[in-house]
Amino acid sequence: MRLDAGLVFLSDSRTNAGVDQVGTFRKLNVFEQPGERMMVMMTAGNLSISQSIRQLVAEHVGADGVSVWNAANMYEAARIVGEAVRTVHARDAKALAEFGIEFNVGILFGGQVKGERCRLFQIYSAGNFIESQNENTYFQIGEAKYGKPILDRVVTPATSLDEAAKCALISMDSTLRSNVSVGLPLDLLVYENDTLAVTRFATIDERNQYFQMIRSSWGQQLKHVFEGLADPVWNAAADATSNVLSSAKLGSAPVRLAPPGQAPSSGQAGAPLQTLAQQFGAGQP
Amino acid sequence: MRLDAGLVFLSDSRTNAGVDQVGTFRKLNVFEQPGERMMVMMTAGNLSISQSIRQLVAEHVGADGVSVWNAANMYEAARIVGEAVRTVHARDAKALAEFGIEFNVGILFGGQVKGERCRLFQIYSAGNFIESQNENTYFQIGEAKYGKPILDRVVTPATSLDEAAKCALISMDSTLRSNVSVGLPLDLLVYENDTLAVTRFATIDERNQYFQMIRSSWGQQLKHVFEGLADPVWNAAADATSNVLSSAKLGSAPVRLAPPGQAPSSGQAGAPLQTLAQQFGAGQP
Repeated sequence: MRLDAGLVFLSDSRTNAGVDQVGTFRKLNVFEQPGERMMVMMTAGNLSISQSIRQLVAEHVGADGVSVWNAANMYEAARIVGEAVRTVHARDAKALAEFGIEFNVGILFGGQVKGERCRLFQIYSAGNFIESQNENTYFQIGEAKYGKPILDRVVTPATSLDEAAKCALISMDSTLRSNVSVGLPLDLLVYENDTLAVTRFATIDERNQYFQMIRSSWGQQLKHVFEGLADPVWNAAADATSNVLSSAKLGSAPVRLAPPGQAPSSGQAGAPLQTLAQQFGAGQP
Repeated sequence: MRLDAGLVFLSDSRTNAGVDQVGTFRKLNVFEQPGERMMVMMTAGNLSISQSIRQLVAEHVGADGVSVWNAANMYEAARIVGEAVRTVHARDAKALAEFGIEFNVGILFGGQVKGERCRLFQIYSAGNFIESQNENTYFQIGEAKYGKPILDRVVTPATSLDEAAKCALISMDSTLRSNVSVGLPLDLLVYENDTLAVTRFATIDERNQYFQMIRSSWGQQLKHVFEGLADPVWNAAADATSNVLSSAKLGSAPVRLAPPGQAPSSGQAGAPLQTLAQQFGAGQP
């Protein structure tokens, strides 16, 4: 995530190549020259590709003498990461394809070079990349969908670094619960503008006290909020205005299919819908 | 969802074949003989395949004279749906493949036949199927991941029908916010054990008062809960026990990469981590 106050990175450490080859590998890597530059690269997708790219990014010096260690700005550095992706593609993609393995990698790359603001990039398998803007505060790679709703609801550029870290952990907690391909420990790195070094980093396992608190409180309070929301009112009276899910006025009907030989349903056939207002759990305004 | 008290079905109505071919088609279909049987079929995936299957399921009579209209139980009916999937596959899959289109369909099929309990099945593109058990209260098809966390946290077989409907709507709201391939209106059907007819059904669009309430309250209260959770404490004192995200004791360090020609990092190199306890937003026990 890229925020007004800095950057927040969170990564899990599960890799799998089928259920009987599950391992723990760290996917968050730091390129740091304290006082000069601080860059973070997180990877998702095929682990052998990711690790080759990491190695190349650290070593690569372009024809123009530019490397991540001396690039004048983050854009140049992201271009070098993209070149590393293409180098690994040229080397490995054909051999992988012979085994039916797709060249699949996703990279988040962000940080700050002295004299420039913080920047965050997402780099694709083809080596091309996009940059985070204020309208797109965060990028996700890997199993992104489970944890996206809470990020969409909470994170804006004005969110503080600690709030953003909290939100990232909640998002990851939701993903951990719903998908076994994601696993502890987590690597969390919070970077504050202009520190140009890693000052806040934590590897979070199941014993981490704060993460335990987040997991139990969030789940409990979510349930509490859930129970506090009123249940729907079915077939409400025509003048009802509270928690009305359906009423005779709305007159909605399901798509009914007719047995062969009978006329297709008009949508109003079948048993009559209940007509009395059944107000379960009413009483909340 | 299959609950002790009955069944809850929720479907959106968005179809798309690329961003310039977006349409509204209803995907929840009812096969009903009031007092005798009530079955619901929801589909996801290729719309032409789904509609062909729907047609065949309504018309199909097996060699043994069995159809969904006279099947002795839900398992037999699910088998007929599976046969319909295979019939459409045999007819269309080859021609679709010539255009690079995968034979892709997901079906949820559930209901009750008189004399039997409620049952719920998920039917795959190959026509095989699985049945919901108490440990797997719900099935999802289509864009399932965004909305899964809240279902995982809330729904158990003991959940009431109204609570389950509420949870399904919250889950769908999260999906609607995070993915444009899902769209209103929604079809919601709640079936109470042994009614053997559709008694509660609502088509929910953006004007639906209850859904509006769910959308605004849930988001607001989620934010409220979020703000109520304590921020992490970085680099806590050794004896701190509250909201500790990192401390000297835990001693975690990022994976640091070294510039070419330098020794690889021990993981402890680089700038020193902050050592003073920085307690942001502390004060919550």
